[in-house]
Formats: sequence, structure tokens, C-alpha cells
Amino acid sequence: MEMEHVTSTDDIRVEGPLKHLQQVSFAGPIALELGGSLPRVTCAFETWGTLNSDCSNAILVCHAVSGDSHAASHDADDAPGWWERLIGPGKPIDTDRYFVVCPNVLGGCRGTTGPSDPMPSAGTNGESRPYGADFPDITINDMVDLQRRLAHHLGIDRWHAIVGGSLGGHQTLSWVTRYPKSTKHCIAIATSSRLTSQALGFDVVARNAIQTDPNFAGGQYYDRAEKPTTGLAIARMLGHITYLSSEAMDSKFDPDRHDPRHIASSFEQRFSVGSYLAHQGQKFTTRFDANSYITLSMAMDLMDLGRSRLELMESFDDCECDFLIISFSSDWLFTSQQSCEIVNALTALDKPVTYAEITTIAGHDAFLIDADIDQYAPLVRARLSEHEPPPPETTEAEQLIMGLIPEGASVLDLGCGQGGLLAELRKRGHDRLIGVEVAQDGIHAAAAQGLNIIDCDLNQGLPAFIDQQFDFVILSETLQVVANIETLMEEMLRVGKHVIVAFQNFAHRSLREDYVTRGRSPRATGLYDHEWYNTPNRRFPSIADVHDLCRTKQAIVHRAIYRDSKNQCEIAADADPNLNADLAVLLFSKSSGE
Amino acid sequence: MEMEHVTSTDDIRVEGPLKHLQQVSFAGPIALELGGSLPRVTCAFETWGTLNSDCSNAILVCHAVSGDSHAASHDADDAPGWWERLIGPGKPIDTDRYFVVCPNVLGGCRGTTGPSDPMPSAGTNGESRPYGADFPDITINDMVDLQRRLAHHLGIDRWHAIVGGSLGGHQTLSWVTRYPKSTKHCIAIATSSRLTSQALGFDVVARNAIQTDPNFAGGQYYDRAEKPTTGLAIARMLGHITYLSSEAMDSKFDPDRHDPRHIASSFEQRFSVGSYLAHQGQKFTTRFDANSYITLSMAMDLMDLGRSRLELMESFDDCECDFLIISFSSDWLFTSQQSCEIVNALTALDKPVTYAEITTIAGHDAFLIDADIDQYAPLVRARLSEHEPPPPETTEAEQLIMGLIPEGASVLDLGCGQGGLLAELRKRGHDRLIGVEVAQDGIHAAAAQGLNIIDCDLNQGLPAFIDQQFDFVILSETLQVVANIETLMEEMLRVGKHVIVAFQNFAHRSLREDYVTRGRSPRATGLYDHEWYNTPNRRFPSIADVHDLCRTKQAIVHRAIYRDSKNQCEIAADADPNLNADLAVLLFSKSSGE
Repeated sequence: MEMEHVTSTDDIRVEGPLKHLQQVSFAGPIALELGGSLPRVTCAFETWGTLNSDCSNAILVCHAVSGDSHAASHDADDAPGWWERLIGPGKPIDTDRYFVVCPNVLGGCRGTTGPSDPMPSAGTNGESRPYGADFPDITINDMVDLQRRLAHHLGIDRWHAIVGGSLGGHQTLSWVTRYPKSTKHCIAIATSSRLTSQALGFDVVARNAIQTDPNFAGGQYYDRAEKPTTGLAIARMLGHITYLSSEAMDSKFDPDRHDPRHIASSFEQRFSVGSYLAHQGQKFTTRFDANSYITLSMAMDLMDLGRSRLELMESFDDCECDFLIISFSSDWLFTSQQSCEIVNALTALDKPVTYAEITTIAGHDAFLIDADIDQYAPLVRARLSEHEPPPPETTEAEQLIMGLIPEGASVLDLGCGQGGLLAELRKRGHDRLIGVEVAQDGIHAAAAQGLNIIDCDLNQGLPAFIDQQFDFVILSETLQVVANIETLMEEMLRVGKHVIVAFQNFAHRSLREDYVTRGRSPRATGLYDHEWYNTPNRRFPSIADVHDLCRTKQAIVHRAIYRDSKNQCEIAADADPNLNADLAVLLFSKSSGE
Repeated sequence: MEMEHVTSTDDIRVEGPLKHLQQVSFAGPIALELGGSLPRVTCAFETWGTLNSDCSNAILVCHAVSGDSHAASHDADDAPGWWERLIGPGKPIDTDRYFVVCPNVLGGCRGTTGPSDPMPSAGTNGESRPYGADFPDITINDMVDLQRRLAHHLGIDRWHAIVGGSLGGHQTLSWVTRYPKSTKHCIAIATSSRLTSQALGFDVVARNAIQTDPNFAGGQYYDRAEKPTTGLAIARMLGHITYLSSEAMDSKFDPDRHDPRHIASSFEQRFSVGSYLAHQGQKFTTRFDANSYITLSMAMDLMDLGRSRLELMESFDDCECDFLIISFSSDWLFTSQQSCEIVNALTALDKPVTYAEITTIAGHDAFLIDADIDQYAPLVRARLSEHEPPPPETTEAEQLIMGLIPEGASVLDLGCGQGGLLAELRKRGHDRLIGVEVAQDGIHAAAAQGLNIIDCDLNQGLPAFIDQQFDFVILSETLQVVANIETLMEEMLRVGKHVIVAFQNFAHRSLREDYVTRGRSPRATGLYDHEWYNTPNRRFPSIADVHDLCRTKQAIVHRAIYRDSKNQCEIAADADPNLNADLAVLLFSKSSGE
């Protein structure tokens, strides 16, 4: 059963002490973004691998709200970490090659300074009571600033990569927007530029549950017998619902909904989902501090890089890294739409970016679940790898297209498949190249080439790109599967100074004869060959049709190449290509100059 | 702005006393489904209109978890009700024609017996303390049983219709499954046969918040100064998030997310969504009882008519009413998928059912929002109306199909449009008729004919229907827009003893000539006329193609009619219909006998 592979955040948590924990303290006062300061800060962290001599192989891993520094095991005897599948010798984040650092966040409760730590008292020598509610409001930027102190302490000026999911993803985005030269690669998983109002609403309710727990005592509960465990457990229950998709919850709880696992708890356990939530809520209170929960969730809620493309473009304008953005189809806490908003701003800024939406029922938790890590790990490996596999062979159409693109031109390839054309162009020295693909195997193969690929359905237009962004927009052997050709045509002309469309001519002699003599639905050959009732093709354009559409859209055709592929020869424009050519390549644009 | 029309449940609530409230008491003991009994029960209700002499014009309206009997105003001076748009003189639930009854539910706190009412003490004369937590667990069936006592009290043996949304929808389903002959029409809106695990999880967290509030005092808080208002407010905040879609919340709160409306509250108000939730949560505690909330939400959570089609078929097997099922596209609390599960069971049982999914961003609250009520009100009006508008004219293809269907045959019409063919068949005396349509205007028009229409995309197959359910399955002038023709073909042969497909022949002489001489993408004429790049058509079948597909699927063609529509004549089978006919009607089946 599929759910056997779905493990929630908590099930894979390590409860033991962090025996490989290192700590470093920084003298203060350390100023905070929202005002105020901390007199002294300790940062706890773990590391894997070895820093090389020029300190250029360091990767920063950022954990999520209830995570910690134990991202992976350190040796065979060590407990597995929360990203065990991703980090280790030979793994996508390869500790044989990279020096990996994972700090506990500021404001947490696993060794880095947070509300449960003693507040150094002013004017005296000793340490006094814990901060509690006196711990100042902090932001993601404050967390990042502490990580930056840690980097300097370790001798790292620039990260090779910064990687994180959820709140960890927020940290990666804060790093690159606050310190634009701080890393070569930014890998942001299951995250957003700011929370949806819905996610914000859930956090507000969770904090209200904690803060109205009478044992919260205004945050000063550390010396009391009773802690605000009820409020914290309720907050965690709520969190768990939002980490899973509805489908995943039904798979897990619906079959035995009236048959709860009975646990010792004062919470309701009438339904299986109730006993699960009670268990998770209670377990959480044994390892997490309520003030830390409030501090971290508020920092997350205050995160705001903007939402409109213009706001986001302003936030990311100075970045000097490339980006890998990953979202999960069933994640309703940090949605694919939110990742797309970031991607659309990055592409508009011409930043190198690859984006993939992973198909899964696991919801937000997917970024921590082995089966889903296996889906996105190849993208992480490709981004961090310096080796590229041999590029796929180019098709005849792609070779013709290559001949039409001048040196150095920027190119957007729509429906780029495995990236053959783009890889060839890169070999020829082009550097502003980007592909769009919707098939996951295509995205993976093209990403493995080190190409920048955006996961996007062409029927939705080209929202990721701005007006006249590319010298050339390519649509090669893809026209026939597009439903909204009219919109796409307008979008290509908007985004590209020139457009090249290569397509099979469905009015070629052989097809016409087939239609006339056999009386059959038009049907492509070669790559396109399917039955009429199950072909992915939904348009059957002729050369004449496409020329007409260009006229309708006021596009001027500058070059047209017509081929008879079977006989490997060109068909002249005056030799009735609409009858005699089976392949056409048209280069056109809005303006009259080529 | 769209959100101006979006009003949440609470914003339209009437806070004043229910001045038109009537009450009736029933002596006990009244047995309850889960065991135990109530010694005496009072039922509070409101009525509109006049009961006719044979008591056949009564409509029962069932309210949602935080609603009450005040569904509509009684006169110009009266406060509007929560379904004001739907109930009143000349409205879809027309109080000039119908006697409308809306009772407060058992277990609530608006006049019908609930946990806040005094518990009659055994052995003494006086009334003692309120039930509190001693109020027994009740079910939706118990609510319905009390409503049935009320019906008998009013002289009503059978309802003309039972209508409700959300928890009110659960009541309608409980009525018809528990008392199969109790109504002519069942109208169930935004509801389900049982809750998703996710919805159940939210309810559990809400109850935990109430029951762990120290002021809850085990449910015996009525004589205490402090009530469990904190827990109840948190429960309500959570409810409000689930009643709205994420998109609706963003419309409402994202633009001014950091700019809350400040209200007097001990709850967090840092974000606009937080101050809204605090306001709604606090307001709720002034009009609702915490024990009632627990009682009603538990009754809802215990509702379980099954989920698999077989379980649901068993639940609905005896029903003698027809059904109108309505869901909302952005409702994630009671999803369209859940409505479809009910619909699929009803259709499998040959129960008359119309199902429509209303497109809206409002989420679950849509059933109470004017703009969305306006979308589904015509369906309610059509279901309750006895007048049918004149049927739409039938097409040539439909007339040919009529000639192939023997008297009394059951018919499923796929892509039925406005229901012209089905209306004609009904005129001819057929009674087992059902249509499938995906376009909302088609659904409305066909429903206005009093036909049973299912909102379903043919590309998803025919999950609503069981093997060999219909004598005839019709696909008229729809083949060319279907992507998954192969699946649909198999599904039609599975569901129908016979299949009739009427389609334009894309290999007709005129189109072939056009293709050959002009070299253009195939293009339909008449109704189907679009440009090649924006036509909804995605298949271009010829007569020969469809015959081939029949062979591939081992279907035997029993009758074939070929027409030359332009010349209004028939083309004989040996006169090359694939060239000469522009319209074809094929009757085929899996078996050899017709």
C-alpha cells in the first residue's frame, strides 16, 4: 500500500541527544531586524565531510520549523537524520566532495540560543532565568545573520550551495536576497516568498492555542511544574493536518476511522485520526519548547519577499546564484503556485533557474519522505554535479533551427524535451538559454545536462517570461499537441524578438492521399504516429494554415525552410511546399526587421 | 472586487431573538441511536406559508452547524434569514406555494433541547441543573427522528422536499436513508456521506481546544462566572478557515495582511487574518454554547453512510425520492469528489438524480453566499417546479437517433446539452432517462426541463454508471471533442446494452476536397465551425475510422444510417458513405443480438 512509504515528519525524527553537535558563541550585542538585540548568542551545528583548502566546497543545509541540525548520520552507529536520503557519501549532497553544515536555527530549542536559554542579566555576572516571553521577536533574516557569523567562524566566505525545505527554504531565500553573492547555488524546496492567508490563519490559531493555555503563564513557565503542553500539543495537531494532503490522510485513516489506537492521553481518541493527532501532539511537547514554537512560527509568518512579480523582482534583483525550485503537487501549505510566483520573477530577471513540480499525494511532508526525495534527488544531484552526461541527439528539425540562430543569441525552447537543442546551443557558446517542459522525465534529463528548465504547461501561456525577453523563442515539433495555439502564438511573439516554429505539415502529399483515398482521420507519421482516437496530437496544421495564422497575428515571416524528409531534400517556396514538404521551419517576428 | 460579494456565514447571521419561533414538547423517554434516552424534548421551529388541505406541500429546511430556524424573514419588518435569497414568496422555495418548516436541531442552543437546557431530574418535580456534559451523544439520525415527531405534530406524513446544506445536507441524507418514503425530493447541498479524515481531524482539534479549556470544567460550566469562551473561540477560528477557500482568504486578507483591524481581544492580532479570526471567534461565543458545539460536531463526525459505492448503494437502496446534489468547486471541507461518490451510488441504483458542481472561489461557505445561491437557485427552482419550459428543438442527428430507440427503453445521453433528445423521449413515454453534461448552461437548461442531469467530464469515463445499466447509451455530435475516445468507447459498451454514436464524417467529400485542393487542416462545418487553432474539436473521425474502432473494440454494428444533410437524402451503405455522407449514426453493441 502506498501509505506504507509515507512517513510523517515526526516518525523519522531522532529523539536522542545530538552527539555530534558543535557549538560556538558570539559576543553581543547582536542587533535584530525588528529592533532590540541579543547580548550573546550560541550557535549549535553539525558538519559532515571536509572543508577544502580554498573553502569553496561548503554547503549549508537549513532545517524546517520542528527540525534540527541532525540532517544525516555521521557514521554507521549514528541515528539517521531527517535528510538521510539526500546527504552522505555518494549521495546527491555528497559528503565525499562537500563540507556540509547544518545549524540549529536561532530561536529554536536544540542548542542555538532561544527563549528557553538563560537570559544573561545586565549588570551582574551570573546567569538568570530563561528569556521566556522576553525573547525578542526575530525574523528569518536574523536566523540567516547568525548562520553568516557561523560561516565566517568556519572560514567560509561563499557557500557552494544553500539548501532547505519549508522554513529551511525561507532561509535559503533570505540568504540570497540579503546576501546576493553568498552562494553559487540556491536550492529552495516546498517553500514560498510569503505565507498564504490560509497558512497564516492556521499559525495564528496555533499560537492562540499556546498563549491562552493557562500554563503558558505569559511565557514564563520554565520554573513551574506545569508547562503549556496542552496548547503546544493542539498547535502541533493542527500542524500535522496541514503537512499532509487530504488524500494522504484518507489513505492513512479512513479505512479504520472508527478504530483508534488507544494511547494514554487526555485528548479525544474516538477516531483513528484523533488518536494519531493526540499521539503526535503529546510526543511533540516532550521535545519542543512552546516559546520556541511561537518564535519560529512568527518569524515564518513575518517572512515577506512580496507576492506580485514586481515586488519579487525587486527582492531577487541582485542575486548572483542560480536557483533550483521544487514544489509538490499536493502541498496545500506551500503551494506550487507560490513556487511559480518566485520562478516567474527569477525568469523575468534572467536569473538561471530550474523549477519542477513533483507529483505526489504526500502533501507538504513530501520533502522529507523517502519516496518523494527519490523523485527530486536527481535534480539536486544534477545541480551540484560538475559532470554532464552526453547530450541527446538533435532531430532534423533542431538542426535546421540551429542554422537560423545567430551566435550569442538568447533562446527559450518551448517543449524542450530532454534539452538536445539547448545543449547544442550551449556547446556553441550561447549562455542565456532556458527550456520549458511539462514531462517529468524530460525535466530530469534536461536538468541532468545542467540546463535551466521550467516545469510549465504551454496551454497556460508563458507567464514566466516578460516582453521581448529572448532573442529567439523556439517551438519545435510541439505545435500539434497544443490546445490554445492562438494564445501561445501571441505569447511567443510577446516574449521573443523572433519566433521559430518547426512542425510536421499535415497537408503533405502522403497524408492528403491517405485522407482522400482511404478516407481516414489525418494521422501523423514517425514520432507522431498514434491511432486517431488516442493520439496526443490535437491540431493538424498545414504549412498554409500556419502562414495564415502568422498573418492573422500580424507576424512577418522572415525565413521559411521546407523539407521533404523522406527524400532528404529541400522544397523551394515556389514548388508547392504545402503539398510536397513534410517538415517546415518558419522564422517570424512582430517587427519587420529580422 | 469579487470579494465584496463574498460574505461569510457569520456576517449574514441574525443576532436578535427569534420572534417567530414556535415550540412543541414531546414526552419521553425518547430513545437515542447510540443508547440512552432523553426524558422530554422540546423542538423549536419556524414556518412560512400555509399547509394545504392534504398536507402535501410541506418543505423541510435543515440548518448547518451554527445556523438556526431563522432561514428567512417572515415579513418586511423581520430580520433576513440565512437563506433569505432562496426562501420566500416567488423565490425558488416559494412560500406562496409551499409550507416551509425549519426546526432548530436537537443538541443545539436556539430553543430545541440541548446540553444547555435544564435536565429534568428523575424522582423530583422541579427542574435541576443543565445537562452539560451529561447530555447524551446524539447522531444525525436522532436529529431527524425529532424532526419526524415535529412533522407528525404538524400533520405532515410526507414532505414535498427536504433541503439542507452542510450539516443540513447530512440531515437530508439521514432522512431519506432512514425513512425512504418520507419525501418526494431530496436536495443535499455541500455535504457528504461521511467526513474526510482531514475534516474529521479539524473537528477533533476543535473539540480538544474546547474540552481542555480549564473553564470547560468537564462541561458543567453553566453556573460558573467563566465559560470556556477561549476554547470555543479557537474552535470557531479553525472552522472559519475551513469554510473559506485559500483563494478567497487571499482575496480578503492578503492585500492588507500586515494591517489588522484592531478589536478588543486577548487573541493575537498581528495580521489582518488574525484580527478577523479573533473577531469571529469571540462573536461566536456570545451566541453559541460550547457543549452544543461539541454535541453537534460529534454528531456530524459520527455520520457514516459508507464511502465505497457498494456501501453507499446499500444505504440508499430503499429511497423513493429524487435527488438534487450540489457541490462547490473550491469547497475543500465537503468536496465535489464526495458529492460524486453519493451521485455514483444513486445512479447505479437507478435513482433519479441531478448533480451540479458550481464554479466558485468561495469555498464551503458558498452555499450561504448570495452570488453562489444565484448560481444554484435555478436548479432548486427547477426541481420544485411543476412547469417545464418548451423543450429545445431536436437536431437532425437526434431525430435519427429517436427512430432507433424502441418504446420504453432506458437511455443515457452523453453530452446531452440542453436535453432536447431526452425531453422528446420523455414525451414519448420513456421514464428511465438520464443525461450527462459538463457545461453549466446545458445543465441548467436540461434541469429546467425536469430532466436528471449529471455534471461529469466524459474524458473521466463513466464512473457514475454500472455495467449494462441502460438499454441505450447515446453520444450525439460529441465524439469530436473527446480526448480519451478509446476509454469512452469501452465505457459506453460497458454501461449500455446498445450504443448509438452520431457524428459528423470528417472524410466527407467536401472536407476531403478542401484538404486536397486547399491543403488546410480538417475543419468542420455548421455547428462545429471554428479555426483550426481554436476549435474545441480535437478528433476528426471518418465513418471508416469509427467502423474500425468498433471492430477493434469487438463491437458489432447493427444499424448504420448515413446522411447527406445538404441534399437531405440518405446514402446507401454501398454508395461509399465515407465519401458521400456528412452525418453518420451507428448503432452497435458488444453482443451479437440487437
